[in-house]
Amino acid sequence: MMKNRIITISREFGSGGRTIGKMVSEKLGIPCYDAELIHKIAQESGFSENYIKNAGEYTPGGFLSSAFANRSFGPTNEDYLWNIQYKIITELAEKESCVIVGRCADYILKDKADCLKVFIHADMDFRAERIVKVYGEREVVPEERLRDKDKRRAAYHRFYTNMKWGCAQNYHICLDSGKLGIAKCSEIIKELY
Amino acid sequence: MMKNRIITISREFGSGGRTIGKMVSEKLGIPCYDAELIHKIAQESGFSENYIKNAGEYTPGGFLSSAFANRSFGPTNEDYLWNIQYKIITELAEKESCVIVGRCADYILKDKADCLKVFIHADMDFRAERIVKVYGEREVVPEERLRDKDKRRAAYHRFYTNMKWGCAQNYHICLDSGKLGIAKCSEIIKELY
Repeated sequence: MMKNRIITISREFGSGGRTIGKMVSEKLGIPCYDAELIHKIAQESGFSENYIKNAGEYTPGGFLSSAFANRSFGPTNEDYLWNIQYKIITELAEKESCVIVGRCADYILKDKADCLKVFIHADMDFRAERIVKVYGEREVVPEERLRDKDKRRAAYHRFYTNMKWGCAQNYHICLDSGKLGIAKCSEIIKELY
Repeated sequence: MMKNRIITISREFGSGGRTIGKMVSEKLGIPCYDAELIHKIAQESGFSENYIKNAGEYTPGGFLSSAFANRSFGPTNEDYLWNIQYKIITELAEKESCVIVGRCADYILKDKADCLKVFIHADMDFRAERIVKVYGEREVVPEERLRDKDKRRAAYHRFYTNMKWGCAQNYHICLDSGKLGIAKCSEIIKELY
């Protein structure tokens, strides 16, 4: 068991989980890995950051077709990325205490590190309003975008971790950022650490 | 919408959810309904308290056979109890701010009252040790008892509320009482109220 203490944050798209992760890391004076993680995976894998950001969770062809690909032809791109991601997250946790957002870090560090496992979610209205504010308007209505991303994220988690995404029993604390507010959520997590 | 503020606590058997409810209610100086609720349902229905405590969630024949009963012969005992429970919980919430443990209060008060919806869970080892300490040894090993109760509780919730029990998105906050400790959980809930 590693000596560092890690906070892993899984989150629904648009719930503000990433912002909460950054706030917690600032309060505690430890690093927060999110975009940095993608940068590292890109460096090691040779794939573009954009591909990685979208691989698995988002691309229409990407993960879902990969999940059903016949692996007797060898691992898919997503399997290859998963292995690199696995290695990088393990190394980060060995190096120092930190906050890690997304990327199944809770599963990867299970039985390896002292983790506080957090899940952030919010209702559709809150997230729809927030993604338009943060990411701007798109052709697809925000509710559709959210439903699609939720579905992909859940499928990705299920496939690589065999755990149900968003099932309370998989986390130490689950918070509704819409009801409780993003600042309050980060406060509670900081207090628990 | 009622003016009172209610804390509803759903919980896995043995997780200490009831103890947490009592601690929160004492800290806040508002009543906690748990055994009292069963007493009220018994008075109104004519069934014994023991039957009600076990109806739905626990009895081997009780809820599960009721769920699959042919309702063209009319409502089952469990349906009858559900209606009384529905009425009593609604009246309690109308009367005053309070903590309500179990009995699908979160679902019953949805869109009616300002609720803080809490779910308490813990891993098997923590709960197994705790139920032996609190309820004493039984013939069946504690892990078996827990698995059975979890299954019944989940089925009961699903049947009457059409919501998945233990799904983080159904609650404002979910806490692992085994990892965080019962005292800390009650502290967090009190702070949020």
